[in-house]
Amino acid sequence: MQQSLGASGITVSTLAEARVFADHGFDDITWAFPVVLSRVDEAMDLAERVTLRLVVDSLDTLRRLQSTGYPFHVWIKIDCGYHRAGVDPTGEVALKLAHELSESPTLTFDGILTHSGHSYQARGRNALKQVAEEERRTMVEFSERLNRDGAIDVSSISVGSTPALSCVEHLHGVTEVRPGNYALYDHNQTVIGSCSVADCAVTVLSSVVSSQPGMGHCVIDAGALALSKDPGPGDAQPRTMGEIFDDYSSGILQRDFRVTSVSQEHGTVNNPMSVGARVRILPNHSCLAVAQFDEFHVVRGDSILDRWRIWRRR
Amino acid sequence: MQQSLGASGITVSTLAEARVFADHGFDDITWAFPVVLSRVDEAMDLAERVTLRLVVDSLDTLRRLQSTGYPFHVWIKIDCGYHRAGVDPTGEVALKLAHELSESPTLTFDGILTHSGHSYQARGRNALKQVAEEERRTMVEFSERLNRDGAIDVSSISVGSTPALSCVEHLHGVTEVRPGNYALYDHNQTVIGSCSVADCAVTVLSSVVSSQPGMGHCVIDAGALALSKDPGPGDAQPRTMGEIFDDYSSGILQRDFRVTSVSQEHGTVNNPMSVGARVRILPNHSCLAVAQFDEFHVVRGDSILDRWRIWRRR
Repeated sequence: MQQSLGASGITVSTLAEARVFADHGFDDITWAFPVVLSRVDEAMDLAERVTLRLVVDSLDTLRRLQSTGYPFHVWIKIDCGYHRAGVDPTGEVALKLAHELSESPTLTFDGILTHSGHSYQARGRNALKQVAEEERRTMVEFSERLNRDGAIDVSSISVGSTPALSCVEHLHGVTEVRPGNYALYDHNQTVIGSCSVADCAVTVLSSVVSSQPGMGHCVIDAGALALSKDPGPGDAQPRTMGEIFDDYSSGILQRDFRVTSVSQEHGTVNNPMSVGARVRILPNHSCLAVAQFDEFHVVRGDSILDRWRIWRRR
Repeated sequence: MQQSLGASGITVSTLAEARVFADHGFDDITWAFPVVLSRVDEAMDLAERVTLRLVVDSLDTLRRLQSTGYPFHVWIKIDCGYHRAGVDPTGEVALKLAHELSESPTLTFDGILTHSGHSYQARGRNALKQVAEEERRTMVEFSERLNRDGAIDVSSISVGSTPALSCVEHLHGVTEVRPGNYALYDHNQTVIGSCSVADCAVTVLSSVVSSQPGMGHCVIDAGALALSKDPGPGDAQPRTMGEIFDDYSSGILQRDFRVTSVSQEHGTVNNPMSVGARVRILPNHSCLAVAQFDEFHVVRGDSILDRWRIWRRR
């Protein structure tokens, strides 16, 4: 589906995901996670079959890749403000990495890559636009610095994060974008302001299994192993472990009903409902919810149009 | 292994788990979750192959099971203080349920069952002993009430929860126990006081993948899809998303290093370490961590003795 709409490559988080995409016709795969050194042999095997692009943010890792003698494709990962991983684009390590990589006799310097994960702290379209623009500018400026201070040409500039890209105004200088959550969206994204409830494509269908007289709650068969324990944005009010639809086709949530806690297979809803009632839940985090299941049911209204296998290998 | 040590049945949370155990030689299976009405046909299929025991805590569900005409085995679920699911043992519904079930022409009344999930709020062995004793007494007293007020004999009394049973003093009157987490234990259980770190049998082995100069943290390849987002007990100090071993064979944790946050595949450790360093993590919640993987590696010291498949179907 992505390919028929023009996607020419794919980004993954794990080598297991990369292998699944390689087995299904994708031949240009970026493993957008700092290389796990114990998996370099596996990466080499996969790179024999497809163009596999690795991500590096340390000299140690770069040198280890170099020592294999294998012609890996390598991105340099830049910290554009998230401060989780990635090199500081104003520091010396970044320049040194780019030099060593571009002068490597074996490795190919693919370009520079970043992920504006701090967009998850922003709220509303204006704040997200600002994160997107800062991300873009940081990357273009770093590219210019490499050209100026190091005489290094950067062929590709890759940016990421669903919230930033859902609101980006322009991408001058950027050659590639890697949002991921946009394919399904979720409740977290609606709180951030990336999308509306009606844009969210994945829901968890659950049943009320226990409702005791005199109690203010009921229990459903969707717990942490369906919804995950993602607590949602810390500032979301009211706090929720999953929102409940009032009218799914119109994208309207019930105002006063939500999943307030999850244990392993049990979920607790803050209002009584009859045993057997079905509830359609908008999970906080669709990626983690989907990773608990083996199959998507592709629906339109009440009809199941298709079933798609979820490859949840590690 | 459980069977060779004398276990004669097994308790599961889902029908998918029940089917796996049925496929592997277990013929007495309690599905200890309030019956999901949309799954009654599946339950019937499985009950053709093994003794499947269902759990009921509402008249609606009981009547629905009765309406199938199928000779299901049924436990009545009692609320012994957790207040999540289960009938109030002092109320009228409990008595009515027991009457209708014991007089059913088709259903078999297996007995009464409970789960002291509130033991997860208790701290220390004395508090856990008290929860265990309250659970036992509630069940025995309810059994006596059924006998006295309803002339109903209760053949089995089943209690649960790892924290309570790890400290229980005696089980007079109880015929069955169903702890689950004890097989692996985890960091949550050490905080509650059910076990020591050395009792914990499952760890997640991870690698440092990013460590930036000047930063106070490093990044590992174990995030929510390895450790889950279980935040641990709310009163645990310091807060952790996973503890890190200093010496695994002695059961000693590093005092100052821990996983402080997890995103999908990334984990953040609150101290720098070199890229490539391996860290062995004690997860907060072993059940949720294990459910993310396909395989156990059974180790002694540095040797892998065996690999066990994890059947994570839904």
